[in-house]
Amino acid sequence: MKENITNNNNITKEVNQHFKFELVHIDKKTGARAGEITTPHGIIKTPVFMPVGTHGAVKAQSPRELLEMQIGIILANTYHLHLSPGSDLIAKASGLHKFINWPNAILTDSGGFQVFSLKDKKIDENGVSFAGLKGKKILLTPEESIRVQQNLGADIMMAFDECIPYPATIEYTKKSIARTHRWLSRCIDSWKNPKQALFGIIQGSTHAETRKICVEEVAKFNLPGLAIGGVSVGEGPELMEEIVSITAPLMPKDKPRYVMGVGNPEDLLMIWENGIDMSDCIIPTKFARGGTLFTNRGKIRINHRNYRHDFYPIEPNCKCYCCSNFSRSYIKHLFDSNEILGTILATTHNIAFYHNLAQAARNAILNDKFLEFKREFLSNYRVVKSTDDENDGEN
Amino acid sequence: MKENITNNNNITKEVNQHFKFELVHIDKKTGARAGEITTPHGIIKTPVFMPVGTHGAVKAQSPRELLEMQIGIILANTYHLHLSPGSDLIAKASGLHKFINWPNAILTDSGGFQVFSLKDKKIDENGVSFAGLKGKKILLTPEESIRVQQNLGADIMMAFDECIPYPATIEYTKKSIARTHRWLSRCIDSWKNPKQALFGIIQGSTHAETRKICVEEVAKFNLPGLAIGGVSVGEGPELMEEIVSITAPLMPKDKPRYVMGVGNPEDLLMIWENGIDMSDCIIPTKFARGGTLFTNRGKIRINHRNYRHDFYPIEPNCKCYCCSNFSRSYIKHLFDSNEILGTILATTHNIAFYHNLAQAARNAILNDKFLEFKREFLSNYRVVKSTDDENDGEN
Repeated sequence: MKENITNNNNITKEVNQHFKFELVHIDKKTGARAGEITTPHGIIKTPVFMPVGTHGAVKAQSPRELLEMQIGIILANTYHLHLSPGSDLIAKASGLHKFINWPNAILTDSGGFQVFSLKDKKIDENGVSFAGLKGKKILLTPEESIRVQQNLGADIMMAFDECIPYPATIEYTKKSIARTHRWLSRCIDSWKNPKQALFGIIQGSTHAETRKICVEEVAKFNLPGLAIGGVSVGEGPELMEEIVSITAPLMPKDKPRYVMGVGNPEDLLMIWENGIDMSDCIIPTKFARGGTLFTNRGKIRINHRNYRHDFYPIEPNCKCYCCSNFSRSYIKHLFDSNEILGTILATTHNIAFYHNLAQAARNAILNDKFLEFKREFLSNYRVVKSTDDENDGEN
Repeated sequence: MKENITNNNNITKEVNQHFKFELVHIDKKTGARAGEITTPHGIIKTPVFMPVGTHGAVKAQSPRELLEMQIGIILANTYHLHLSPGSDLIAKASGLHKFINWPNAILTDSGGFQVFSLKDKKIDENGVSFAGLKGKKILLTPEESIRVQQNLGADIMMAFDECIPYPATIEYTKKSIARTHRWLSRCIDSWKNPKQALFGIIQGSTHAETRKICVEEVAKFNLPGLAIGGVSVGEGPELMEEIVSITAPLMPKDKPRYVMGVGNPEDLLMIWENGIDMSDCIIPTKFARGGTLFTNRGKIRINHRNYRHDFYPIEPNCKCYCCSNFSRSYIKHLFDSNEILGTILATTHNIAFYHNLAQAARNAILNDKFLEFKREFLSNYRVVKSTDDENDGEN
């Protein structure tokens, strides 16, 4: 592995001309971080929540709506774009930014998460094979994932790893992470474009021992950023917090720290408190389509009859287009009538809610008041445990 | 009937303070008209095409998208809004403009068209009864239609009439129009708000004799506008043209002339040539949702494989948000991926296409070149007879 690290010294140096992380401030009481990530497509203030644009479109939003909310970075899924329309087509369209008309930063995942979720797949040292559209056999390897991601041209690429299913024995976990680290080395070998930053992924399941091994091994590669993967895979909030609180402090301080696929507002507060800078999740967009909206007092189901005569905005303090212009009564009516505009407005609001939450957290951190901010938010925000808001399909 | 006309002299005078029609120019060769309608919610240049917002929302568009395209008037359906959320709720929200956050003009139909399309209905002199949501019996009468429309507060209300199904015998037609004219008289009796202009509707099926009777009878009421109803109900383009070309010249010259529920671009050119000022249709929005897009060379089906590598805009000469920012290849990808953004962008473009067509027609009329304009448009625009673009449901 040493050899690889040496071989790739050039690109890990060169990437620093295009991609920078500045740690602006650490909250004195918690270790929560405020930072700035510079990419070839703009500067991102952290902590940041990244809306998900699976197929190269954040569901029910146009780029200008996201820009109006000052969204600096979105995530796109390599797996979906690889299957359709294919990354060669997107390369021909001069890359994903041009294809989808998105001027700010993009992060692409490696495709691993989706592939490992498939029922019919074959994993070996080389990579993972699975059936794509129309049953066509597809082989995803570290090299292929990076090739596809370089075709897409995202500002941040993710290494190809195995997202270990929960639960996993320590034996399986050790075997898997060793392979994931060999795959990381192969990802780095395939990485040619210094305008695209490659992030390594820390797996290790729910075991402290393997998480520590992973941080150590991944950190050796001196990559521009590191992510915690393999959380929010069914282990529940307590174990998730345990993993993050064990792993995050071991991660390099001078690199952005990303937790993949998280989550609810209360999860975000938890990861930020643990010094995480970035996260993504389908929750705001997916819940919006099902009529679940985020407010400072908790989630609401807009189709509830209580909102029929409620002429207040979804969140009176919110400045988003939805809350500035429409009432709960109208949004309920749109959902009752199956009007797409209901989905559009609800999505706008939920993304704005998450973005505002991250911005408020950042301000609190800059003033060493993250803990007070968290307490105040949670004292207003009523967490209702329910499954009825997980209603609409999104990959 | 004379009595009614006298009784309502006040409101027909008062409405002229809020609602005006100016006939700006008549094309020398054809009689096509350019005009201006002044309403309490802005000025509308005619000929105008009105996008349909059935439930108080133009499908897949937010008000700001329509405003950006300079849409001056939209249509909303009384029937749908009456059933849900109910016009009393909308009155409580200070009317439809406020409820849906639409600052420009609104026209509401009478509900008659939808009610007469229902299978289980009972028509008598009083009105029409039918089963509403959850089987609740609803009675729609001229008085109730106007009451509901006054609750909604549209700038233009339509009289409650019977939209005679095609085909109809001359005997049935005569019986029906006599009742429709008695209903018109009752509509006028219920009309109290001079900030809302009431338009009368000319029925008469496909018979020249009855159409002439209707124009004469409706014109007697000296209403602020008149509409041709009962076209585009299955009679086909030739009979539609016959009806319009017989009826339009008989309509008062100093009032806006509206043909309801029309239609395709080639139908619009036909009605404009016959001196019609206004029309509405679900075609641009409905076709957009099914992936059928309007261009100067005809309709295209964006899911066709030809567009996979086509990086041109839908319509290169179009200045809409869709055509200014996205390629056919991306729009196809969005439709292939079932992304709502595909529907949003396609709808934006189709509405822009119709709006631009009306604007271009107006410019041609002002320069006495409507015929040349029509010929040039039709020589480029390839009309493909097919049913496969009628794919998505809209009421």
